[in-house]
Amino acid sequence: MNKSLLCRLLSIVAILIGASMTFSLPWALPVFGGDWKHEQSGFWGLIAAMFVCFGVGIVLRQLGRNGHGQLFQKEAMAVVGLSWVLATVLGALPYTFSGTHRTPTDRMTYVDAMFEAQSGFSTTGATVLTELQDPKLVPRCIMFWRSSTHFLGGLGIIVLFVAILGQGSAGKALMKAEMPGPSQSSAQARMQHTAWVLFLVYVGLNTLLTVLLMLENLSLFDALCHAFGTMATGGFSTYNASIGYFETRPDLYNASLIDYTITFFMFLAGTNFMLIYALVIFQPQRILADIEWRVYVSIILLVTVLVVAVGLYNHDFENSGMISPDPAAVAAADGTVIDEDASKQTVAKGLRYGMFQVVSIMTTTGFCTDNFDIWNSFGKGVMLVLMFIGGCAGSTGGGLKVIRHILFVKILGLEAEQSFHPSVVRPLRLGGSPVEDQALRKNILVYFGLIFLIFTTGWLFTISLEPDSTWTDNGHMAEHKLIDAASCVAATLNNIGPGYGVVGATKNYTHFQWYSKMLFIWLMMIGRLEIYVIVVLFVPSFWRSQ
Amino acid sequence: MNKSLLCRLLSIVAILIGASMTFSLPWALPVFGGDWKHEQSGFWGLIAAMFVCFGVGIVLRQLGRNGHGQLFQKEAMAVVGLSWVLATVLGALPYTFSGTHRTPTDRMTYVDAMFEAQSGFSTTGATVLTELQDPKLVPRCIMFWRSSTHFLGGLGIIVLFVAILGQGSAGKALMKAEMPGPSQSSAQARMQHTAWVLFLVYVGLNTLLTVLLMLENLSLFDALCHAFGTMATGGFSTYNASIGYFETRPDLYNASLIDYTITFFMFLAGTNFMLIYALVIFQPQRILADIEWRVYVSIILLVTVLVVAVGLYNHDFENSGMISPDPAAVAAADGTVIDEDASKQTVAKGLRYGMFQVVSIMTTTGFCTDNFDIWNSFGKGVMLVLMFIGGCAGSTGGGLKVIRHILFVKILGLEAEQSFHPSVVRPLRLGGSPVEDQALRKNILVYFGLIFLIFTTGWLFTISLEPDSTWTDNGHMAEHKLIDAASCVAATLNNIGPGYGVVGATKNYTHFQWYSKMLFIWLMMIGRLEIYVIVVLFVPSFWRSQ
Repeated sequence: MNKSLLCRLLSIVAILIGASMTFSLPWALPVFGGDWKHEQSGFWGLIAAMFVCFGVGIVLRQLGRNGHGQLFQKEAMAVVGLSWVLATVLGALPYTFSGTHRTPTDRMTYVDAMFEAQSGFSTTGATVLTELQDPKLVPRCIMFWRSSTHFLGGLGIIVLFVAILGQGSAGKALMKAEMPGPSQSSAQARMQHTAWVLFLVYVGLNTLLTVLLMLENLSLFDALCHAFGTMATGGFSTYNASIGYFETRPDLYNASLIDYTITFFMFLAGTNFMLIYALVIFQPQRILADIEWRVYVSIILLVTVLVVAVGLYNHDFENSGMISPDPAAVAAADGTVIDEDASKQTVAKGLRYGMFQVVSIMTTTGFCTDNFDIWNSFGKGVMLVLMFIGGCAGSTGGGLKVIRHILFVKILGLEAEQSFHPSVVRPLRLGGSPVEDQALRKNILVYFGLIFLIFTTGWLFTISLEPDSTWTDNGHMAEHKLIDAASCVAATLNNIGPGYGVVGATKNYTHFQWYSKMLFIWLMMIGRLEIYVIVVLFVPSFWRSQ
Repeated sequence: MNKSLLCRLLSIVAILIGASMTFSLPWALPVFGGDWKHEQSGFWGLIAAMFVCFGVGIVLRQLGRNGHGQLFQKEAMAVVGLSWVLATVLGALPYTFSGTHRTPTDRMTYVDAMFEAQSGFSTTGATVLTELQDPKLVPRCIMFWRSSTHFLGGLGIIVLFVAILGQGSAGKALMKAEMPGPSQSSAQARMQHTAWVLFLVYVGLNTLLTVLLMLENLSLFDALCHAFGTMATGGFSTYNASIGYFETRPDLYNASLIDYTITFFMFLAGTNFMLIYALVIFQPQRILADIEWRVYVSIILLVTVLVVAVGLYNHDFENSGMISPDPAAVAAADGTVIDEDASKQTVAKGLRYGMFQVVSIMTTTGFCTDNFDIWNSFGKGVMLVLMFIGGCAGSTGGGLKVIRHILFVKILGLEAEQSFHPSVVRPLRLGGSPVEDQALRKNILVYFGLIFLIFTTGWLFTISLEPDSTWTDNGHMAEHKLIDAASCVAATLNNIGPGYGVVGATKNYTHFQWYSKMLFIWLMMIGRLEIYVIVVLFVPSFWRSQ
């Protein structure tokens, strides 16, 4: 292991993190709408964090001053894994230094801050902050830093995706369908081209969504934060009720329009960015020919229809919205006969809330407009399964990715056939063309096996070490611990955010013990970086050997 | 597909099923303790069922009169799968013909009867009968038929295990450690030898346990039924409160002794029978050297200690037992200071109930002495995971088997190492000796993948199609549907029996819709026959091609 080279590369990460904090500073200033009285702690916290980042960067740079030579696979893995750890450690500093409050009475601990930073970078969107709308508790500039970790995380994933393109049979095979041109062309040049394309698509969509949201009457601050949350498939909002907030202010916003806008952009964020590029350069046939995208769209449509139909049957949408309806309104509605108009309206509500939530979970964004925690069991069960599916490869979405599920099902089918046709060996096909690669078959199976193992271990850890009081002290039932804990682990491992019960759509992770939060931090990292680069950090032989 | 040969072999199954019903007839007679008034419906039902079995046997025999030639792998798979289906269809007849009642008011439907028969043959032990102790509702001879399906199922699995030994790389590799002698010896002779050994161990242990239970004051009937339930890792009892019944009659039984006896024999039933044979022929070193057995014992000990410790901490065992304690006794205990003797007693109770339940679930037996449904979340969660582990290969236990878990974890470890050491290819080792076989690696991963897929599909099916009223009409909460349904699917797929909530230790499967019961029938079959032979029955190309 070339440790000098490692330090040199990590120093870049530290300095970039510090530099990116600059963009959060202006929001503390009155000219950008900040109330200096409340913002100064955030402002100076950010400044202090920047100093630490630069300091760490300089020290690492010194340690790595002899770091030269080639980046082998092991070094590459170590850089990726350690960068993410370093980003979490440094990205947490602004929260701690500014004394941000996680509840009206408690400041964030350093573990809370790391949780929030990792949730941002991994584009999970799980939060420990219970009160977002009071700048006395969470300064605006800190809030902006929180959302910008989503933007940076999404960017990091895109860069990584390009890096993976260049190496490893699985990565290549996964991308064969999407990559343009014959495979003889220069790998280096193509990688650079791809990186630029993905970067421009990402930044372009962020900009476009910001503009659209501003046209829909959001402030620049809110528009930027929600665009970051959407395009990174993150899910941090600036409001306690997430996107559901806009409905509570009909005087300011057309909530339904905002919902559909964000639904559409979440859908785009879960799409392979190479395909969006294809659309931009007027090759729409490529997006339609893409098997992964077709499956992605089919799942979203099918699940939306099922969830809306079953939800309507169970009257799940009649009181939709994140905020409990006005008691007076409920009393007035009682006893009124539901006429055709009202039921039409309910269908429209069902479609709007149902589709939003399906897209939000499937793309692993985790925004909420409806408290899906109180949906019927079918809806809740399907959402839990959706969490494991995730977005397309080449998007910012988390989860296992649609392509892996397609391959998984195909491989299991082929292998089951082998049990009675041992002599027939059929190639694995994807959209007509063979993607055969024995290593790929095994890799997919191993990946599912590892996710399954990590999920079960994380679940056992949570149910055994997290005390029942986390449930009972917060108005929940300890009997729901098994399913709630499963949803916590699924929601962090797959980078979604909200789960059920104690971490439901209207709740957050603040009440968990510090060791559970540490577990979730690792789960978010493992999910985001697709297991290996994080797991190997704990393998002694990874560090020892050449 | 040689359909004639298939029919000829299936005719043997039909005739054997019919013949085995003979052993249930005597229990209807007064000389064996039957009250003829209640028993006659059962007696004539069994006679009628025997006629149908023999009739089906003769017809199949006629259809297969030209059935000769070699049994290829495909025919072998078809025979196994169809035998099990035929056994279910025929084994259900006595219940239907005798008009057995599943509740005091309702007779069993044919689906109920198939469920009960499949639960018996697959040694699951899930039941639809709510009232076992009233011979007016369930005649004794039918009850004996119910328990004998366990015995037959256990026997069938042992025969199958030997058949698998002879073919397929996975089977061979799995057995390499256990099989005595050099591999050059005649495969045929060794298979016959193995079959005899396993048969004798199975029958011997059944006999031994029957005698022991009779010495512990059980009637011959009860002793036989519980021995069948134990040694087949089945779980059908003749009492509503399962093994917990004996505690309610301190005048007749030493319940604690019975508990420990059954715990020990369940443990043996989950052990590879080849190892028990080794013990019998005074080679105890072989059992200690067996890696699977060592892991099996370690898991049981570790989980018992954890479950008992956490359970004691949560006061789970203070009111242990299947029957709610006498209110007067509770009132008397209230206000008394817990002295050292009492807390010692609680530890003893915890050990007794905790170990019984851990062994019962791990070996996939499903007997209960304590309502583990009301244990703390940790206990319940661990039990749910244990369900998927199961017994050793070469035992009658279900689940995925300990050896598959050992290999699964080892394979994942080796493959994860390959991610950063692509050039180092390490062989898969089991107890020091390499069992390398690339096909084995893939097979294990595919097996876990399929179980995972079937589990998820079964779960989605149950939560979407089984109405909430199955919960709410029976005093349960619909909010527990997600976890309860997961436990139903796990308990049937892994051949355990009881789950949580609506199918908890004191409950049963009677309230489910017929289509859910059909699903569970298939899940039990899939789990018991290790997926493939059942799944291929639904693959058209399996039947078409040569």
